[in-house]
Amino acid sequence: MGRATEHLAEHLGQGGGGLLNATFGNAAELIIALFALSKGLTGVVKASITGSIIGNILLVLGLSFVSGGVKFSKQQFNRTAASISATALTLAAIALIIPTIFHQAAAHVPVAQGGWTPAREQALSLAIAVVLFLTYALMLIFTLVTHRQLFGGLESQSLAREAGAELTRMEAEAGPHAPWSIRKALGVLLVATAFVALVSEFLVGAIERARETLGLTEVFVGVIVVAIVGNAAEHSSAILMAVRNKMDISIGIAAGSSLQIALFVAPLLLFASYFFGSPMNLEFTVPEVVAVVAAIIIVEQISGDGESNWVEGIQLLSVYAILAILFYFLPDAHPAAHELERITEAATSHP
Amino acid sequence: MGRATEHLAEHLGQGGGGLLNATFGNAAELIIALFALSKGLTGVVKASITGSIIGNILLVLGLSFVSGGVKFSKQQFNRTAASISATALTLAAIALIIPTIFHQAAAHVPVAQGGWTPAREQALSLAIAVVLFLTYALMLIFTLVTHRQLFGGLESQSLAREAGAELTRMEAEAGPHAPWSIRKALGVLLVATAFVALVSEFLVGAIERARETLGLTEVFVGVIVVAIVGNAAEHSSAILMAVRNKMDISIGIAAGSSLQIALFVAPLLLFASYFFGSPMNLEFTVPEVVAVVAAIIIVEQISGDGESNWVEGIQLLSVYAILAILFYFLPDAHPAAHELERITEAATSHP
Amino acid sequence: MGRATEHLAEHLGQGGGGLLNATFGNAAELIIALFALSKGLTGVVKASITGSIIGNILLVLGLSFVSGGVKFSKQQFNRTAASISATALTLAAIALIIPTIFHQAAAHVPVAQGGWTPAREQALSLAIAVVLFLTYALMLIFTLVTHRQLFGGLESQSLAREAGAELTRMEAEAGPHAPWSIRKALGVLLVATAFVALVSEFLVGAIERARETLGLTEVFVGVIVVAIVGNAAEHSSAILMAVRNKMDISIGIAAGSSLQIALFVAPLLLFASYFFGSPMNLEFTVPEVVAVVAAIIIVEQISGDGESNWVEGIQLLSVYAILAILFYFLPDAHPAAHELERITEAATSHP
Repeated sequence: MGRATEHLAEHLGQGGGGLLNATFGNAAELIIALFALSKGLTGVVKASITGSIIGNILLVLGLSFVSGGVKFSKQQFNRTAASISATALTLAAIALIIPTIFHQAAAHVPVAQGGWTPAREQALSLAIAVVLFLTYALMLIFTLVTHRQLFGGLESQSLAREAGAELTRMEAEAGPHAPWSIRKALGVLLVATAFVALVSEFLVGAIERARETLGLTEVFVGVIVVAIVGNAAEHSSAILMAVRNKMDISIGIAAGSSLQIALFVAPLLLFASYFFGSPMNLEFTVPEVVAVVAAIIIVEQISGDGESNWVEGIQLLSVYAILAILFYFLPDAHPAAHELERITEAATSHP
Repeated sequence: MGRATEHLAEHLGQGGGGLLNATFGNAAELIIALFALSKGLTGVVKASITGSIIGNILLVLGLSFVSGGVKFSKQQFNRTAASISATALTLAAIALIIPTIFHQAAAHVPVAQGGWTPAREQALSLAIAVVLFLTYALMLIFTLVTHRQLFGGLESQSLAREAGAELTRMEAEAGPHAPWSIRKALGVLLVATAFVALVSEFLVGAIERARETLGLTEVFVGVIVVAIVGNAAEHSSAILMAVRNKMDISIGIAAGSSLQIALFVAPLLLFASYFFGSPMNLEFTVPEVVAVVAAIIIVEQISGDGESNWVEGIQLLSVYAILAILFYFLPDAHPAAHELERITEAATSHP
Repeated sequence: MGRATEHLAEHLGQGGGGLLNATFGNAAELIIALFALSKGLTGVVKASITGSIIGNILLVLGLSFVSGGVKFSKQQFNRTAASISATALTLAAIALIIPTIFHQAAAHVPVAQGGWTPAREQALSLAIAVVLFLTYALMLIFTLVTHRQLFGGLESQSLAREAGAELTRMEAEAGPHAPWSIRKALGVLLVATAFVALVSEFLVGAIERARETLGLTEVFVGVIVVAIVGNAAEHSSAILMAVRNKMDISIGIAAGSSLQIALFVAPLLLFASYFFGSPMNLEFTVPEVVAVVAAIIIVEQISGDGESNWVEGIQLLSVYAILAILFYFLPDAHPAAHELERITEAATSHP
């Protein structure tokens, strides 16, 4: 799939290729999520969004820092690129907090006076999704058009391309290959997509059976297990790059992937949910919001100095472990929402 | 008004001039707020404090970055000055969180055992206001006395003066003008203040009519509309400076103005509220607290690297848009407080 | 006690010495806490953990910056060392938030479906404590083994040693002294520990009497008063170093001490609580969590630029004053927990 995208990119030029990369880079997650959306499982979709974000920036980056750090006592990376990703992630975190804040603030106001209703939460979420989507589009223009020369080697999109080039070079060492035609690239892309969809369906079934056997909650599986399985490709590439001391690519993969999930995949899923007849809002549970915010804050600190070592990797993994512990103990229901409904009920039954 | 202050500053020397600048720089906001306070509208005052802080650091700075960034591919500014402002803003954010935390923590404790009462919230707010006021005074001493030479060109106060000089220079190109006498400067200052007060009263009325016509909530008008109108001067100056690639002045205007609102105007309004017989506390609603904290966090990240470009401006505007969406959907009541009261009622009616 | 530890360190080598330093550096706090634990006063223990963390990084560091800043207009320190401490503190803050989030999220789910129970909170806390303990152990290996040469002069452990050396040198100027034998060092250590335990018991009694006389709450005494008394040694050393313009040592003492409390002493106390038959969890009250997070955020910002001056010290002290005001007004009960129980009661009595 990745290779088909790359070949297609050669035909579409760099701009279109970057967009394609952005669209299909997280294809597996997107397909699994669309599959869950079609069944109305919006809670599962949100859990997998949360899981992808924290999985990429804590687990993938943590393992990369440790793998690279075992070989190199100190590894350096470009602070500017890391900082642009970090800011965009903060923007995403703020966007994901707002619907929850709205619910909590408007929950006890009578509906006639503007109190919380599912329709208003939906409208708020839609408006925020549009803002995120536009911001992402403008960030692509920045990276691919206005600041292509300036930031050429630094940006996540370029890094993805560089990563692709690096992987291609490794491939090339194994044997020669010719550029594909548009038709071939598109065909492979479609077949691969269908294949991922099939595998996803199988995978979801297998995970569900394992879940019941092990007595795990759906939340834990959605946030932790699915994210680890779904990001397997990011894991292996990022760690490989870290071991080769190419930290910029490693960070580009981990942070870029989180970024796309938050600013592109999440709004896209919200728009798509309208086609399935069960509109999804962007209200995450409090533990999900806390997990994303905590992950983003620690990653900003660690990436702020442009250097990594194995203990910073351990610190990222440690935060991931603490969040995994939280989701392991957390019961399945979305209690934040229920709690508020019950409180409203209890409160409104008294004058 | 600004020019009268400047002329007076020449007579009082730099120290007194800085203080004057701090006092009259946000004069319009202060007068509108005092006007609202005299009618006991403490909710409106808090909304306008919130709106001024987030408006200055997100909207004004965001527009400056975009305006400047369209012309220049990269603009640089002094990190040290930006960082000192950011720290002071964080201090302000912490101060504004505390009264809300106190309310939530003490709400369910019986009053006899130290539970929440309006009087205790008031006393807590007064104590915090005194700390903020003293911190602001010490920061002025730092800027204007002990570190004048060292930080001369960097500090917000100096930047304000530099901005004044720049504007004066632009004026001078249009025609000559002589320094005013103290009497003339003071007179102009008083007349201007009276004029602003009149305009404010007119403006508040016009906004109120527009609000009803458009079906907007008071919260939205207070946080978003009033702030945009009230900060028009900051907007135009900051954007002008950004287009001229003088980012230090641009940031100094935006951050300095937010800072004065938080550390100087807010405590001053609390003190003033005692004269109007309806003491105001510093307990903001949860959405207001979240908006201020989110704005300060994103601005710190963006200003951390000492460089700006148009996409960073877009990111700031994006956060502003998301917060504006929140306040657009938010109902008018102050639900956080009501919610707690109702819960207490519901809870205490059961043994 | 400190000197006995140092002499013992000479016999055990640097690795063991660092661990000893970590273990006995906060010995007074540890002994007071164990004393309180043996009486089942887990609330007091948590208050003193909170107090030690915020006391060290706000009060000790703030006073150091002011003391040093009065003499020197600008003081510099190593950003890398400060940043590693800051990251570890953020990790600790995330860990301390999680049990509170778990309680709030799981409180309204029926127990059969995985709802909140004291046993589950306990298990969650134990798992987090193990992660923190392992992270601390790995950080010690990083500092003392793998990156000893690289980070030799920068790390908190090395700084503690350097501080020790500095103090020893000052001592040496007063008169000669020979290295102690292991037996003597261990003996002095045991006697000193017993002495601290005795003094602690006396101190706790004295503080309790003073508390009643002055009408202070237990929370205020635990978080503010005990922390000031218990950290007297850190205060004097850190300020002394700041006045001598050795800011790295000063920051190493303040941040290192907070770090040990959060990553080493807190887990150790949780493990120890099992021996006393009243297991302690890591669920702190919301005000305690907010205080720790606020302190860590402001300290990160101030230490981010590698420079300090007196106004940054004032800013730290200002945050400390604001938090002290909060704890002064806060009633004694742990309302967060009670609140949730009452809400559950009220909510579940209605279908």
